[in-house]
Amino acid sequence: MSFNTFGHMFRVTTWGESHGPALGATVDGCPPGVPVEATQLQHWLDLRKPGQNRFTTQRREPDEVEILSGVFEGQSTGTPIQLMIRNTDQRSRDYGEIAEAFRPGHADITYWQKYGIRDYRGGGRSSARETAARVAAGGVARAALGVLAPGVSVTGYMVQMGPHRIDRARFDAAEIARNPFWTPDAQAAKDWADYLDALRKSGDSVGAVIEVVARGVPPGLGAPIYAKLDSDLAAAMMSINAVKGVEIGEGMAAAALTGTENADEIRMGPDGPEYLSNHAGGILGGISTGQDVVVRLAVKPTSSILTPRRSVTRTGQETDLVTKGRHDPCVGIRAVPVAEAMMACVILDHLLLHRGQVGEGARGRIG
Amino acid sequence: MSFNTFGHMFRVTTWGESHGPALGATVDGCPPGVPVEATQLQHWLDLRKPGQNRFTTQRREPDEVEILSGVFEGQSTGTPIQLMIRNTDQRSRDYGEIAEAFRPGHADITYWQKYGIRDYRGGGRSSARETAARVAAGGVARAALGVLAPGVSVTGYMVQMGPHRIDRARFDAAEIARNPFWTPDAQAAKDWADYLDALRKSGDSVGAVIEVVARGVPPGLGAPIYAKLDSDLAAAMMSINAVKGVEIGEGMAAAALTGTENADEIRMGPDGPEYLSNHAGGILGGISTGQDVVVRLAVKPTSSILTPRRSVTRTGQETDLVTKGRHDPCVGIRAVPVAEAMMACVILDHLLLHRGQVGEGARGRIG
Amino acid sequence: MSFNTFGHMFRVTTWGESHGPALGATVDGCPPGVPVEATQLQHWLDLRKPGQNRFTTQRREPDEVEILSGVFEGQSTGTPIQLMIRNTDQRSRDYGEIAEAFRPGHADITYWQKYGIRDYRGGGRSSARETAARVAAGGVARAALGVLAPGVSVTGYMVQMGPHRIDRARFDAAEIARNPFWTPDAQAAKDWADYLDALRKSGDSVGAVIEVVARGVPPGLGAPIYAKLDSDLAAAMMSINAVKGVEIGEGMAAAALTGTENADEIRMGPDGPEYLSNHAGGILGGISTGQDVVVRLAVKPTSSILTPRRSVTRTGQETDLVTKGRHDPCVGIRAVPVAEAMMACVILDHLLLHRGQVGEGARGRIG
Amino acid sequence: MSFNTFGHMFRVTTWGESHGPALGATVDGCPPGVPVEATQLQHWLDLRKPGQNRFTTQRREPDEVEILSGVFEGQSTGTPIQLMIRNTDQRSRDYGEIAEAFRPGHADITYWQKYGIRDYRGGGRSSARETAARVAAGGVARAALGVLAPGVSVTGYMVQMGPHRIDRARFDAAEIARNPFWTPDAQAAKDWADYLDALRKSGDSVGAVIEVVARGVPPGLGAPIYAKLDSDLAAAMMSINAVKGVEIGEGMAAAALTGTENADEIRMGPDGPEYLSNHAGGILGGISTGQDVVVRLAVKPTSSILTPRRSVTRTGQETDLVTKGRHDPCVGIRAVPVAEAMMACVILDHLLLHRGQVGEGARGRIG
Repeated sequence: MSFNTFGHMFRVTTWGESHGPALGATVDGCPPGVPVEATQLQHWLDLRKPGQNRFTTQRREPDEVEILSGVFEGQSTGTPIQLMIRNTDQRSRDYGEIAEAFRPGHADITYWQKYGIRDYRGGGRSSARETAARVAAGGVARAALGVLAPGVSVTGYMVQMGPHRIDRARFDAAEIARNPFWTPDAQAAKDWADYLDALRKSGDSVGAVIEVVARGVPPGLGAPIYAKLDSDLAAAMMSINAVKGVEIGEGMAAAALTGTENADEIRMGPDGPEYLSNHAGGILGGISTGQDVVVRLAVKPTSSILTPRRSVTRTGQETDLVTKGRHDPCVGIRAVPVAEAMMACVILDHLLLHRGQVGEGARGRIG
Repeated sequence: MSFNTFGHMFRVTTWGESHGPALGATVDGCPPGVPVEATQLQHWLDLRKPGQNRFTTQRREPDEVEILSGVFEGQSTGTPIQLMIRNTDQRSRDYGEIAEAFRPGHADITYWQKYGIRDYRGGGRSSARETAARVAAGGVARAALGVLAPGVSVTGYMVQMGPHRIDRARFDAAEIARNPFWTPDAQAAKDWADYLDALRKSGDSVGAVIEVVARGVPPGLGAPIYAKLDSDLAAAMMSINAVKGVEIGEGMAAAALTGTENADEIRMGPDGPEYLSNHAGGILGGISTGQDVVVRLAVKPTSSILTPRRSVTRTGQETDLVTKGRHDPCVGIRAVPVAEAMMACVILDHLLLHRGQVGEGARGRIG
Repeated sequence: MSFNTFGHMFRVTTWGESHGPALGATVDGCPPGVPVEATQLQHWLDLRKPGQNRFTTQRREPDEVEILSGVFEGQSTGTPIQLMIRNTDQRSRDYGEIAEAFRPGHADITYWQKYGIRDYRGGGRSSARETAARVAAGGVARAALGVLAPGVSVTGYMVQMGPHRIDRARFDAAEIARNPFWTPDAQAAKDWADYLDALRKSGDSVGAVIEVVARGVPPGLGAPIYAKLDSDLAAAMMSINAVKGVEIGEGMAAAALTGTENADEIRMGPDGPEYLSNHAGGILGGISTGQDVVVRLAVKPTSSILTPRRSVTRTGQETDLVTKGRHDPCVGIRAVPVAEAMMACVILDHLLLHRGQVGEGARGRIG
Repeated sequence: MSFNTFGHMFRVTTWGESHGPALGATVDGCPPGVPVEATQLQHWLDLRKPGQNRFTTQRREPDEVEILSGVFEGQSTGTPIQLMIRNTDQRSRDYGEIAEAFRPGHADITYWQKYGIRDYRGGGRSSARETAARVAAGGVARAALGVLAPGVSVTGYMVQMGPHRIDRARFDAAEIARNPFWTPDAQAAKDWADYLDALRKSGDSVGAVIEVVARGVPPGLGAPIYAKLDSDLAAAMMSINAVKGVEIGEGMAAAALTGTENADEIRMGPDGPEYLSNHAGGILGGISTGQDVVVRLAVKPTSSILTPRRSVTRTGQETDLVTKGRHDPCVGIRAVPVAEAMMACVILDHLLLHRGQVGEGARGRIG
């Protein structure tokens, strides 16, 4: 899990810049015999694709994925799967004005300081476009889970936009795919639309909280101490652009609970132990319990905004910067399929790790 | 960063169980020529040591660290540094009652399911005792930072216990070492003492939020995408026992901010760019900005409590479980030096990574 | 160094099959600011390209490399460099006859057993075509060495074909590029041409020994025990298709020497210690001495031959197999630039590792 | 596989210096439920122990291994197994004379140059004493193989001492344990005893060739390209002190063979395909065939000899150096159990990798 590679056994290396010729993912460690089709990966990419409604950037990125290796006659071979997406809409003139100045809150200043290279064409490697490669790789992970652990499903949705949270009592899973915010609360979707329209017109942006749930994860996934399932999930989510916080189960709220409140009590069910609550978010001691694995991540507001902000240029001139161009007023929207993809990759990775170190299934029985 | 090893260049492998013969850390990748003394590591271990006041477990763990390798005539040689701490207070009779039942909220059920091994003597590998090894390794990291980046300091403190937060207006760094809670708010320390006494008497426990700040971190540390400084910090903190949430800078609160509010504006100072705020927590695009690196972590309440909780045994019998023995009413207290140690390890690791990939110092100048 | 990735800091992941859409290398960890041009990488690829004379396969592989990421305005940015080579000459009909039978000495049987996938189109991932990606990546490594350690040069040449060794007394470095065998012995080149013509006509193939020398490697490269410079070189060379033996310095012949004979005695020269011989091949204790680093590798004869060999099919039928198609009579010839590429990658990788762990240059002075 | 750690899933980190307090191995990734006893590990250590006859160093190293973690009630728990061996015979006065001068052919010069640290007490980390830790870890690997792949056996023996090779016609496996040279040729054992006595008296030393065979390895072990079984074996063997060459199957001799000679032809046997020869050494395309895995390694002569050799000191003084002390006249003898240990570790590691990536057993059937 270093540099541009993620995972232990299922290893995804993403590559590519926002305005270079192409970007993609080198997926190493996919088991053999998994059905992998470009159309299927395209399905997930299309969900992430911008420009589908007025709430995401109007850049047109067709994001067509091409499978260059590792798949033969529709099945993974066990060798690296190379996924490439050509960049087509490279209007770098939009970025001309920010070629010398640094956007406050954006990575262009730290990339410059670290590397001494200024790819002014829209963020280069730090652009959220990199996440398209993750979504494609996540599609491969989902396909592999479909073979190895067909009961696993991964679903992400937005639970907060700016200061506005959903009402959990209105949670309707079917609603998620029906609104532009991937939210399970239909009323929130309506309110947020108005809120975001107003923000957008004022040249501003806003943050969001995404929740991702993996259902059907068998107990026993996770490795001791530094490859704990929650530690790897935290790393995965925090690696997504603009994410500033990650929570498992109760998350930060766990601090305010007593041990009596926070304990997930256990009774015996027909198929084994059953938990009466899920404060833990499905993970104890870094290992899955068999309950839903629940992760939340906070996405900060887009730093590229139309409101002038004080900044400096490479030569040290002070300036008031406005970022024109086509930017997302709430980049959290497009983070939903990315967070799902990361969850799928981590779960698969730990399934393979567990199978390698321990074997098929859990070793310890209860009851 | 897999299994029991943490880090890319500065790699710490911890080993050992709470009631086995010993535990420790194999520290690989410490640069040569760093002064490393057992007394200096002992200093950090003593801070973490339990039983120093009525708010931490009354187990007596002398936690004396022995340096078995990698140090010659008081200096690191560049070879692995083996740090061993003998376990001495192994009163396993305290755990006899929970040998068959699983503590709700504790890792003993998932360890059993995964490995089919039941080390009933107090948590085994999942015990917080493992963190003593991290603190010792963190001492080596601090010593190396003292040579390679003498301006860096790492400080942790408690900012919330249960529902009670500190008042930032009362923040006094000098206060941190003066109270049993490592909190910079003297008034909070008094209030929390009463609060925790009451909780302890009622047989309950409570969570906490820790903040860790690294000052003097040069700009440019961090590696793209999956070894981002914040991603590695998230993994490091989430790997600490009982941690359920990790925040960088604004953290989860970033979701509620607008882009205008969240932007850290920049002006030129005498020595280069200066930020007018630090919502980012010192990290943009996964790379340090030169500001304070600010991380917060939520620690859940201890699951071993005296209040009966419903649970099951290995044979599937339902039971109401009370965990006797000597447990921390707020395990977050002892997490403070652990979180500091992890911060020190991550900063050093990225300093070495940066030096390897980019060379000494930042490459891009401003002004 | 696992699965399809090689290296610690300079990490090369190759991907692609002989008859898929493309193959390539994902190069992660190249320092920023290195001049990287497609034409320059093409130079090295053209050296490896088959069909240039009658002694290599007559397949036409234009092997045009495209840089898809990580390079901006002619310089590496510090982000992953994606190198892609489209497969164009995919005459899979040539392989129709071996779709069911396994070539003795070829990987197709073990790939089938391991993965249960039969890519009958010419070896798939196990084809020597994969090495084109290594040569391209090696070109990046050479470019980086040109910036970081400009005194380093890497040269490979053939020292044995079948039973025929070169005469070291006739060693002429200028000769290497003048003959189709990359041999420094002009007379050997003539003799081998006749020998190989005869073999080819008889439908047979033969092995070879390659020697690769890195000059100008500074002392101090190499990491203790398991990332020893020689251990990494052995892994790198043994990972090349058809290689069955690797030697450092005296290699296997070291077994027959006495300690008196094998010691490389040392005297002081004007610039520091000078060795009077180089039995060690430039490496002591896994760390470079500053002398030439000398590696030799034995390449077995091509297993795809026109002489019938006894074999079996997937359904267990016994058969006498002849491999038609366009195969190299001495695949060792084309291994020369591949071995050079691996040497360049390993030297660069250890330069970065050393810089990260120890800093610029050696720490211990002599004299 | 970097720095001081070896392996992908079964990861061994050795630590410790020849004259420090202790040395050992941190074994991470041993599956749970493997019977591990100190007495069993001691068995393998005792085989390696010096001073058992006149042909190995007369240093007394009791080499008693202590299991500090990872084993509970005689079984591995799945957590790191810490193996410690205290150093007891630390007669560092023996080394006083070489504290300033560098032994030709020894790592002390390169360690000094790299790290700027001079551990004059007998080689420090570069001492062959480090291999005791490998032998202990190899004992764990053998125990795990005993559970997961009980048909696997690993045997090493000496096939050449100095210029004298064994006669393969006299090969008698039962002889290996009966002579001080671990050779299967009783006559060679007698001849070598005389030869080595003479060498020792003359103050010289000599090299050797070791062969290690793993029997019963199932087909399908090995991972593509850079974690090929042979690549990992080459790295493992070349990481052993004083090894200068590694061969798989025919090894360097493969260069002299034709394709017709080198092909291992295949017929169907009662249980599947059977090979009529084993030039490949049991590995094709980096993946095991099911035949014996055969590796050979050349060990150079001990560099610490009583014959004066020209050298220099740290201050650049030229000197004629004689290494007194207790050194092995043929360090290859003690390399036999070490090479066995490395083979066991690599086979187990690939068994776990295969199980993780592909699942139990091979996927493709023949017949």
